[in-house]
Amino acid sequence: MRYQLYYWTGIQGRGEFVRLALEDAGADYVDVAREQGDDAIMPFLRGEKPGARPFAPPFLKAGRLVIAQTAEILSWLGPRHALVPNSEAARLYAHQLELTISDLVVEAHDTHHPIAGGLYYEDQRPAAKQRAEDFRTQRMPKFLGYFEQVLDKAGGRHALGRHSYVDLSLFQVMSGLGYAFPKAMKRMRKKLPLLTSLAERVAERPRIAAYLASPRRIPFNEMGIFRHYPELDA
Amino acid sequence: MRYQLYYWTGIQGRGEFVRLALEDAGADYVDVAREQGDDAIMPFLRGEKPGARPFAPPFLKAGRLVIAQTAEILSWLGPRHALVPNSEAARLYAHQLELTISDLVVEAHDTHHPIAGGLYYEDQRPAAKQRAEDFRTQRMPKFLGYFEQVLDKAGGRHALGRHSYVDLSLFQVMSGLGYAFPKAMKRMRKKLPLLTSLAERVAERPRIAAYLASPRRIPFNEMGIFRHYPELDA
Repeated sequence: MRYQLYYWTGIQGRGEFVRLALEDAGADYVDVAREQGDDAIMPFLRGEKPGARPFAPPFLKAGRLVIAQTAEILSWLGPRHALVPNSEAARLYAHQLELTISDLVVEAHDTHHPIAGGLYYEDQRPAAKQRAEDFRTQRMPKFLGYFEQVLDKAGGRHALGRHSYVDLSLFQVMSGLGYAFPKAMKRMRKKLPLLTSLAERVAERPRIAAYLASPRRIPFNEMGIFRHYPELDA
Repeated sequence: MRYQLYYWTGIQGRGEFVRLALEDAGADYVDVAREQGDDAIMPFLRGEKPGARPFAPPFLKAGRLVIAQTAEILSWLGPRHALVPNSEAARLYAHQLELTISDLVVEAHDTHHPIAGGLYYEDQRPAAKQRAEDFRTQRMPKFLGYFEQVLDKAGGRHALGRHSYVDLSLFQVMSGLGYAFPKAMKRMRKKLPLLTSLAERVAERPRIAAYLASPRRIPFNEMGIFRHYPELDA
């Protein structure tokens, strides 16, 4: 089956977590808006298409199914592409870890948009500085420390004891935070040897390495979730 | 099976979405921390218990399974208690709607804590006022308008065309927002006839009505997600 991924053009954003899974699986997919423009997304958001109506991208069209919410898409793709272990307990755990990554992603986004997503960063700078400081010193260590312990408990190399979509998402988190907060992450990586090593190994997986070197990987920029504003990385 | 629900005492919080499903299903469950204190939660968060390690409550112990993340707990309970339709498409849609409710809940929480969850509301009041205004005028209408259209598309009475855990969660959202933002919600309910009627019908379901009248239903207060600060409801 050829999947159709719908996500805003120009940013990695939440779509990137899905792209990494599709690329790692060698799945057949079209990144629809990058071929047809963002307008292709709108009929789904307006409820003009059959099937589930998404609140926001990313969503994946798989035959007649429309699947939205990043973590749900990954939970659906996982068993179909050997990106999650077979047992119910492991699948539930994988999804829980992915939902926790989603929570971290919201908080990473809100460091530059603590007041309103519809306002420019420049219009919420003082609040952003405060929120980013709390994120760097409290929330980021709490989330990353948790995932480091998850890795440790599972033998050190994989969140679920073997390769899974959760590892791919943890790579994206480490990459994104490293882009947004290079100083904070430089200090923090010393306390996160397992996450650091996992991110390096994921980047070397043949299909992921090929993807990262291709034009399909959009560079990080100041329109996405992970943005580098030096004043937020004191 | 007797479920064990773990959630902080003293607030409805995210645990309430799970409680409503358990109560509506007439499921056998213990609200562990309300019997044993919040300390009962800690060994799970510290990774001292077997099974999946939760990042935060609520989590549900069902036999040997430990299931965390509100939407995942509901997705797991749904088919076991006839709280979701049978088809794969409907279950995926239900989970997506619940995850969208989770997104709304984060934003409702951040109206009073836009800078840091670890600081008091009083220490982030100016930012809270700005964020609450954006929430009331932009985000709340967008989310609730979406769910009103979801109801409309499904025939008007239920999010999924029949009773489900999503309806229970929409009741909780309407109740919580009505408590936190009574003025804004009074105006908004006129544009949300289907959501308003759904919330009333859910409250009249015999088991839900009995639950709401019982001491098991913790009153809304200024420690939970939905807090009433009049200055945030201009």
